[in-house]
Amino acid sequence: MSRLLVKNGEIITALDRYFSDIYIEDGVIKAIGNALDYKADRVIDARGHYVFPGAVDAHTHLELPFMGEVSTDDFESGTAAGIAGGTTSVIDFVVPAKQQSLIEALNNWKEKSKKAVSDYGYHMAITWYGDQVKKEMAQCVREEGVTSFKAFMAYKGAIMVDDGELMSILKTAKSLGALVSAHCENGEVVALLQDRLASEGKLEPKYHEKSRPSYVEGEATNRFTMLAKAVDVPVYVVHVTCREAVEAISRARAMGLSVYGETCPQYLLLDDSVYEKPDFLGAAYVMSPPIRPRGHADALWGALKAGQLQTVATDHCPFHLKGQKELGRGDFRKIPNGAAGIENRVGLIYTYGVTENRINLNQFVDILCTRPAKLFGMYPRKGAIMVGSDADIVIWDPNTEGVISAKTHHQRNDTSIFEGFKTKGAPTWVVVNGRVQYDQGKLDVQRGAGRFIKRNTPEM
Amino acid sequence: MSRLLVKNGEIITALDRYFSDIYIEDGVIKAIGNALDYKADRVIDARGHYVFPGAVDAHTHLELPFMGEVSTDDFESGTAAGIAGGTTSVIDFVVPAKQQSLIEALNNWKEKSKKAVSDYGYHMAITWYGDQVKKEMAQCVREEGVTSFKAFMAYKGAIMVDDGELMSILKTAKSLGALVSAHCENGEVVALLQDRLASEGKLEPKYHEKSRPSYVEGEATNRFTMLAKAVDVPVYVVHVTCREAVEAISRARAMGLSVYGETCPQYLLLDDSVYEKPDFLGAAYVMSPPIRPRGHADALWGALKAGQLQTVATDHCPFHLKGQKELGRGDFRKIPNGAAGIENRVGLIYTYGVTENRINLNQFVDILCTRPAKLFGMYPRKGAIMVGSDADIVIWDPNTEGVISAKTHHQRNDTSIFEGFKTKGAPTWVVVNGRVQYDQGKLDVQRGAGRFIKRNTPEM
Amino acid sequence: MSRLLVKNGEIITALDRYFSDIYIEDGVIKAIGNALDYKADRVIDARGHYVFPGAVDAHTHLELPFMGEVSTDDFESGTAAGIAGGTTSVIDFVVPAKQQSLIEALNNWKEKSKKAVSDYGYHMAITWYGDQVKKEMAQCVREEGVTSFKAFMAYKGAIMVDDGELMSILKTAKSLGALVSAHCENGEVVALLQDRLASEGKLEPKYHEKSRPSYVEGEATNRFTMLAKAVDVPVYVVHVTCREAVEAISRARAMGLSVYGETCPQYLLLDDSVYEKPDFLGAAYVMSPPIRPRGHADALWGALKAGQLQTVATDHCPFHLKGQKELGRGDFRKIPNGAAGIENRVGLIYTYGVTENRINLNQFVDILCTRPAKLFGMYPRKGAIMVGSDADIVIWDPNTEGVISAKTHHQRNDTSIFEGFKTKGAPTWVVVNGRVQYDQGKLDVQRGAGRFIKRNTPEM
Amino acid sequence: MSRLLVKNGEIITALDRYFSDIYIEDGVIKAIGNALDYKADRVIDARGHYVFPGAVDAHTHLELPFMGEVSTDDFESGTAAGIAGGTTSVIDFVVPAKQQSLIEALNNWKEKSKKAVSDYGYHMAITWYGDQVKKEMAQCVREEGVTSFKAFMAYKGAIMVDDGELMSILKTAKSLGALVSAHCENGEVVALLQDRLASEGKLEPKYHEKSRPSYVEGEATNRFTMLAKAVDVPVYVVHVTCREAVEAISRARAMGLSVYGETCPQYLLLDDSVYEKPDFLGAAYVMSPPIRPRGHADALWGALKAGQLQTVATDHCPFHLKGQKELGRGDFRKIPNGAAGIENRVGLIYTYGVTENRINLNQFVDILCTRPAKLFGMYPRKGAIMVGSDADIVIWDPNTEGVISAKTHHQRNDTSIFEGFKTKGAPTWVVVNGRVQYDQGKLDVQRGAGRFIKRNTPEM
Repeated sequence: MSRLLVKNGEIITALDRYFSDIYIEDGVIKAIGNALDYKADRVIDARGHYVFPGAVDAHTHLELPFMGEVSTDDFESGTAAGIAGGTTSVIDFVVPAKQQSLIEALNNWKEKSKKAVSDYGYHMAITWYGDQVKKEMAQCVREEGVTSFKAFMAYKGAIMVDDGELMSILKTAKSLGALVSAHCENGEVVALLQDRLASEGKLEPKYHEKSRPSYVEGEATNRFTMLAKAVDVPVYVVHVTCREAVEAISRARAMGLSVYGETCPQYLLLDDSVYEKPDFLGAAYVMSPPIRPRGHADALWGALKAGQLQTVATDHCPFHLKGQKELGRGDFRKIPNGAAGIENRVGLIYTYGVTENRINLNQFVDILCTRPAKLFGMYPRKGAIMVGSDADIVIWDPNTEGVISAKTHHQRNDTSIFEGFKTKGAPTWVVVNGRVQYDQGKLDVQRGAGRFIKRNTPEM
Repeated sequence: MSRLLVKNGEIITALDRYFSDIYIEDGVIKAIGNALDYKADRVIDARGHYVFPGAVDAHTHLELPFMGEVSTDDFESGTAAGIAGGTTSVIDFVVPAKQQSLIEALNNWKEKSKKAVSDYGYHMAITWYGDQVKKEMAQCVREEGVTSFKAFMAYKGAIMVDDGELMSILKTAKSLGALVSAHCENGEVVALLQDRLASEGKLEPKYHEKSRPSYVEGEATNRFTMLAKAVDVPVYVVHVTCREAVEAISRARAMGLSVYGETCPQYLLLDDSVYEKPDFLGAAYVMSPPIRPRGHADALWGALKAGQLQTVATDHCPFHLKGQKELGRGDFRKIPNGAAGIENRVGLIYTYGVTENRINLNQFVDILCTRPAKLFGMYPRKGAIMVGSDADIVIWDPNTEGVISAKTHHQRNDTSIFEGFKTKGAPTWVVVNGRVQYDQGKLDVQRGAGRFIKRNTPEM
Repeated sequence: MSRLLVKNGEIITALDRYFSDIYIEDGVIKAIGNALDYKADRVIDARGHYVFPGAVDAHTHLELPFMGEVSTDDFESGTAAGIAGGTTSVIDFVVPAKQQSLIEALNNWKEKSKKAVSDYGYHMAITWYGDQVKKEMAQCVREEGVTSFKAFMAYKGAIMVDDGELMSILKTAKSLGALVSAHCENGEVVALLQDRLASEGKLEPKYHEKSRPSYVEGEATNRFTMLAKAVDVPVYVVHVTCREAVEAISRARAMGLSVYGETCPQYLLLDDSVYEKPDFLGAAYVMSPPIRPRGHADALWGALKAGQLQTVATDHCPFHLKGQKELGRGDFRKIPNGAAGIENRVGLIYTYGVTENRINLNQFVDILCTRPAKLFGMYPRKGAIMVGSDADIVIWDPNTEGVISAKTHHQRNDTSIFEGFKTKGAPTWVVVNGRVQYDQGKLDVQRGAGRFIKRNTPEM
Repeated sequence: MSRLLVKNGEIITALDRYFSDIYIEDGVIKAIGNALDYKADRVIDARGHYVFPGAVDAHTHLELPFMGEVSTDDFESGTAAGIAGGTTSVIDFVVPAKQQSLIEALNNWKEKSKKAVSDYGYHMAITWYGDQVKKEMAQCVREEGVTSFKAFMAYKGAIMVDDGELMSILKTAKSLGALVSAHCENGEVVALLQDRLASEGKLEPKYHEKSRPSYVEGEATNRFTMLAKAVDVPVYVVHVTCREAVEAISRARAMGLSVYGETCPQYLLLDDSVYEKPDFLGAAYVMSPPIRPRGHADALWGALKAGQLQTVATDHCPFHLKGQKELGRGDFRKIPNGAAGIENRVGLIYTYGVTENRINLNQFVDILCTRPAKLFGMYPRKGAIMVGSDADIVIWDPNTEGVISAKTHHQRNDTSIFEGFKTKGAPTWVVVNGRVQYDQGKLDVQRGAGRFIKRNTPEM
């Protein structure tokens, strides 16, 4: 029996803040109270620290084969980097090929995730539709604990589904009580604009954003929410980047719809001038949707504070500049899309959100920990500091300062899109399943210790 | 040589109002001026009358085979009814079947329209896409004077095109300088809602609106304008009925796009309580998009006044209640969609628009006569009182009063959706191609006198 | 020492739901846990019940002299009626006359509230501004525990402040960390419209809404939020009734402002057809802002669900139809404005919000209990089920059914604006400060037992 | 008798374009037609030129005492500079001091304008309200031909009116059929922000925009339109600069209101980086409202194209950098507000509007010539190429190129806010009242030849 006692910390939840001790036994929170005097193997004095639930990253792509390459962080390195930053569970996307069995793809992912060091769940991407898919969707929800699906409205000719297929997915999900998320960009328009830019010889990284401008995302987001209204099913918009998408979501929510939105640190903190960086460094920022022109980030922060967006995830999907991103020298369409962020998310949102008064501490915990856990059916096991919850706990020093750099991060990525960003606040200790796995600057993880999280249907 | 002199009228254009005489020779306006003393075969004293260009109805379906029936007004009766109401040209939709040659369908329409009594043009509906269609679209514009196309975003499984096809249509139109209009309703959603209502046994006419509610139109309108933005081509939204569509158009226009919108008298003047009429009379109002709940009409009037909608057409497509609409007793999905309006449009907009101060007289002429002529490339031959213009002229008594009724209208329709509507103002004389064809209450038309209007590309 | 044990209930908070027992000692929650086996004077078996924090009504006018009359419920009867419905604290408005000392008015209110049966706080209305007011505002916040102020943008010539005064109030509040709320209607416009209607002889109750239509509220709401932006201070909009105000609040929140909004059951559940009731019954619904036309309520529900409005209060301010409302027979401007609601709020929001799926159970508790407590600086003493919180607890039977009627309510009001409304769910027991004061249908309150709540500055 | 014949030009009106000759006698257009063969004192061959109505600048401040200085262009130099750029009439603002008689101020302006070289009218600013003002407003409209008024919602403590006064102005204007325009900035907020910036020592020109940011204009614009709705009177918003104001106007217009908006070239073409110019050059751009951050101009262009803004004027009010603007070194609040533009407007809008496809040629004429003439009751005497109209005619070479510079302009201003701007198109000849006053690069004006334009009430 392992026993851990965290004393004197200020507990922050999505609703409350109060001083209390926490006693943990065998990976589960057993007691919360003042001056607890349980015996423990280890006692952490959290004085001067915030204590909040381990953050949930609901959007990762670990060891993902994509555009001819494989994302560099696998389930071991990715979840470890997460722990170093305060993230203690991830939900990764299983992406079946067209015509591939969902279950077959799921089994593939199960294999890959065996080496995870923190707990993990899966979303199932639905890249085609048919009777088999319908049946397997039910199996995912009812047997496998995979209770959320994702559709791609972009990537024409690859994993994009058309509106008819999307409607079928939404209907099936409704019958299962599952949540459907979508990558909202109009794939037809992206294809058109890519062709046009290519025909004009505009193939440097800086044209990536021009090939999928914000109205392309706004249109798809609007369409997705209206299809959801027709089917009467809750939906979740991943990686919202722009004012138009925020407005589409807000219009839908004003109609009383259960529409939820996620954004990511890169969209909150960067602008499209990054694509102008010399020496092909702009390629590091090539992801879809792209980084937007100045102004959009204000809309995203406003929406987070107002509650029109509910979560911040990472879309963690790193590729090296050397050897991978470089494949797109001469043609931005061939640059593997994606970047790293799992290690940086909590610190960035604390620094630029909380300390700059864009959101408060409760919102910070809600956005990073509690809401994703609720929306994806793993609350209060995850996302909560409650008796009975998994002992995934971040003990956060609000005053320490740092600078993000690829030289020092734990992510497997030769660049960082946040290189040079200053941070305020960082974990001193991170407890994962009752064990201190990040200890005053040192990672101490166990390959394969992470467990699969069988999720319930979402709580809206 | 035929010579006509119209004296002492107050000429109303889209821009001006002034007193002047008009002299006409062989169907063309030859002089405009005060106290003209040309010799003429006939002199009309227009004292106390407004004199404005013959109205253009840019949206008719004459003798259209649709849903197993054929619309009751043919090119003779339809254009004659138009003249009785002040409309002197129409643009009718050629609707090829899927896989049918556009030119073959066009020839079919040429045959049908030989009996027209006023001038007419065609829009070409594009119900499928391929190399042949692309080639024939060019032929339409360059050889046939058919310079506008229409796509259907509804009618899944029939004439609906998907987004990829729609993009192709837009691109081809752009290369030709042609205008594309669209029927904006999301066909996938309509199909879903129809199925759901049917499965619930909800098949009376009153469920027609429930099967295609306003957000369905709003979504498609938004999508259409964003595709147009991507392709960078002007577009025209037919029969706008609701606030959501007005807002989508307004958003697009605020971005600087060349997006134009049309509405119809039925959407301005009726509300969905009509579907509750007893004795299956609600079926008379079954058209797509449907008549909306109260409130939407205010948005349409506001948009007309503000210039966010530019035209009012009719979507004239009558079916008898007896023998035709009745086919849908027991299933609203089988009620032939459509209603009559070509005779009533000018009077209704004058009465409820001008005399109730919702729009001014110049706007009235712009909306009904000049804008459709400009947008569809037949200005200033049509839609203008200018030297050189076709002598299509309405001489309007602003003070006469009337009541609309199926008993007295010239339209071939056993019901009128405007039954009992009071009107103020009516034509005393209507001159068509220089000949008085409506003369103080009496139609005097000539079968086959109408000529095809070879149109130019649109003027924005 | 009084000891109470509530066993087996399902505790609902703004964030969580879980089964637990609650042990209470001397009016304070001492323990929350499973199978607690404290000795107690009384044990309630809450099986099958929801257990949530006593609701807070942040907007009441008890024993208020207004328009020549005095509202009929005093602090005793009003708070008692609240308890019967599940409301266990109120914040009442101290309304000084122009030029009156705030502290003098406060003392007056202290006198009146001595007879309260539940706890209460005060908002201070600021009806004029000057050095004395500025000084007394500081005294209110720093010494009196009155940490919120209210300004009236309506009631020209009476308690309305102009924009310069409003700016001064906002600036002083900012320096004190206090929250400012406003009654948002443009008083200049109301005065104009009242005069116009009067001059046209339109003085029946049904013209009340016409004298202050929704755009009047929308304008003032927009202005209030922009003044708040300039001063950089959080604000709270009381009794939001309409789409325009919701949109103004949403625009402000999208800019990242700390703008909060309250609505009331009457605006969520009634429409302006109530003003047409015969026998002057329409007068019962005369309040400001007025009940709106159909459609606005949908916007309010949507905003509550989306989090754009945060609270539901009552604006409880009853006047009898007989003898009071009747004074305005012949002139709606003389009808004392206001209605009762304190007893009905929780039940109505449960019935029409939760059971009709417009909001979920956590939102229900947040909107009625937790958010008002947080925004008005009395959380977690009020609005929470936490160890250390006041033992104000509602034990709610979700299945019982009822019908609202003036014949049976505890409010001192000869009419009910919710007469005949069906409800689902009601309190079986209501614990106030550790004592069961509503017990299976029977009120058991103690005159004067209510205590003043010295509030902290707001928590945003 | 003076006779002028303009041959072979392409006439552009707000509605049409066609080739025609124009014959002018004694300052009035006598005939328009092809191959006119009147005898004339002078014949201009306008081949290759556009021929359009002399532009109307509805917003000038000539020889205005303001902030301790007097604007540098008087009625002679200002109207002359206008002619050099294609502007042939101005409407200047009479600005009475508080408590001053409107008629007294009007007489003062009559004196100043005697030296004008082109025709001119006046708007009357209403800076206070009372019985005398009410009476004099009537006198302005009924006797003086001054049919438009202006209120200032900014300049607290100086010429600002409060909402009560503004309502009175609107009501009186309504009774007279007059149009009311407003300078829409919230004066209370400006005062607050100026004080705050001053207290922080932020007094360089670059803080001017920070002292009156766009939301300040948005709020006042929204308020103005809602007061106008209540009074039911048409209104005109001068110098719209930002997205928020455009949105407020668009919301009002969507409600069917007669709300019109004007913008100016500086807001369409500059951004707030101008305030960062070295050597106090930023002061040249200090005007109110200020030049906005990037992005707002797109909203203005979109609104012009969509018809949500109707006119472009100049707010011409030049002060020299040397000796005048310099007074505000060390305190931006003391920089005389204003800049020159009357000479540049037509060329800038042609270049950046027409040749860059943001508006078409008809819109260009409408926005600069016809709409201001209509809205301010001088159409078709001004703003039209019609028989009977004043012969104010611009003969425009669309192909000539130029560069704007203070070194070469005719405006009395030691700087140009458009210094270095390239232009395409310029007048070759400008005819004013039938006389060629700008002749292939050379001004030939007559001091005092300009006549006062007695205006009618507006045409909406």
